[in-house]
Amino acid sequence: MEKISNISLIRERVKDLKRDGKTIGFVPTMGYLHEGHLSLVDEAKKSCDVVIMSIFVNPTQFGPNEDYDSYPRDIERDEALAKSRGTDIVFYPDVKEMYPSETLTWVEVEKITGVLCGAKREGHFRGVTTVVTKLFNIVQPDIAIFGQKDAQQAAVIHKMVEDLNMNVRIKLAPIVREADGLAMSSRNVRLSTADRKNAVILSQSLFAIKEGINEGKELSKLMEKAKQVILGTPGARLDYLEARSYPDLETVHACKDRCLIAIAVYFGNVRLIDNILIENPS
Amino acid sequence: MEKISNISLIRERVKDLKRDGKTIGFVPTMGYLHEGHLSLVDEAKKSCDVVIMSIFVNPTQFGPNEDYDSYPRDIERDEALAKSRGTDIVFYPDVKEMYPSETLTWVEVEKITGVLCGAKREGHFRGVTTVVTKLFNIVQPDIAIFGQKDAQQAAVIHKMVEDLNMNVRIKLAPIVREADGLAMSSRNVRLSTADRKNAVILSQSLFAIKEGINEGKELSKLMEKAKQVILGTPGARLDYLEARSYPDLETVHACKDRCLIAIAVYFGNVRLIDNILIENPS
Repeated sequence: MEKISNISLIRERVKDLKRDGKTIGFVPTMGYLHEGHLSLVDEAKKSCDVVIMSIFVNPTQFGPNEDYDSYPRDIERDEALAKSRGTDIVFYPDVKEMYPSETLTWVEVEKITGVLCGAKREGHFRGVTTVVTKLFNIVQPDIAIFGQKDAQQAAVIHKMVEDLNMNVRIKLAPIVREADGLAMSSRNVRLSTADRKNAVILSQSLFAIKEGINEGKELSKLMEKAKQVILGTPGARLDYLEARSYPDLETVHACKDRCLIAIAVYFGNVRLIDNILIENPS
Repeated sequence: MEKISNISLIRERVKDLKRDGKTIGFVPTMGYLHEGHLSLVDEAKKSCDVVIMSIFVNPTQFGPNEDYDSYPRDIERDEALAKSRGTDIVFYPDVKEMYPSETLTWVEVEKITGVLCGAKREGHFRGVTTVVTKLFNIVQPDIAIFGQKDAQQAAVIHKMVEDLNMNVRIKLAPIVREADGLAMSSRNVRLSTADRKNAVILSQSLFAIKEGINEGKELSKLMEKAKQVILGTPGARLDYLEARSYPDLETVHACKDRCLIAIAVYFGNVRLIDNILIENPS
């Protein structure tokens, strides 16, 4: 496995790969890899000749009061994990390489970035769409893999690629969960032992809502009940629990066709998200 | 010369050209071609194997009270002119092809779009940078040629390409002028005979300022004098006359290093622009 930190070097490698007719699968990450990220590598390997993973904690997608500084980082561990799973190239630029001068240019997706996480994290998605555009332009992948864990991000990236006629196909990979159901996240390591145990409330709420919907129960009542349970969970502070159409992310009052139930909960200053996509509820 | 109106068809052609190792020079236009546009084709031919010209009057860069509807169009004449100059492919999509669904995604360059034309035409540059991004993604050129006539646009595109790590080199081509000095523009045909004659005031003002600067005269006095002359020109309504650093477009009070003198004047409802770049004034 190669590790490349320099934009002009990776451009050269990409050019060579393309000249040789190789297809490129791209897995953009912020590092501190877990099984969720590695499942994206598996997905990329299925359909592409070469897998490039980027590891870059992107400052422009963190708000001034968010956890950019405390976001966990461990490049050596990441390299070993990426290599073990068959990643061909890790692209690991520093902030100066990605933002060498004052950035004036932003890629913004309207409307669907103003709800859920976007309503709570001002400027977050603008940072995401801008850095993903930069990475796409540098890596020029045929396919890019994103996790369903960040369902809103996936919808936003999809819309951006479509609107801007970008030359890349977006593939989603399902959420990978711990044994107790907690969605894997680099932020999980920052939970206290008690909070880690209680964090199971996110996935349990989602599973309960899905079950209720399939039993024909009323969405609003299921959501209300879940909110009460979270309210009674020690250490948990609900950020949002919402039902939305997918990928348009419009408010829905009942689950029809394709519906996203998305949740965000704080434990201390650690913010966890999870979601479940319910297709054609019975 | 080929004419292609369909995005997936031009993508196929581009793919074939790239596979054959051809370099692509791109000339984005809004049509109603004149010698200014054709000089961009010449410039593209100098350094690329294949020249693709787009002809698309982009609605998203016109304000609600601007001249989108009355912007001159004549595709048959354009085709003949493009062909005569050696253009290989004309890409001529309609609005539905470029904007098939509600566009939520915008590429925005801050700061340098808030002055000169950007201060007067709200949303104009957002429309330009977004459509240029789309066209770059569709045509995937090695080099794209823009006219110095739209000096601010060139600075904005340059900054966008740099900030977003786009895989294209931007080249500028000098302003092409009529015999009396009027900068060529598709909008010139919309001038009355009297206005057409008086429109020479734009370039004359710029040339006079440049001469004055090289003679060591004070910038503010030269600008004031030019404004008075325009004020006394029948039919002319000054929109702006400004001196700015280039490409940062910051206000300057004296011309040092590289300085842009830019002007916009209305004759009736026709808005004309022109500019002159003064390098290392003597």
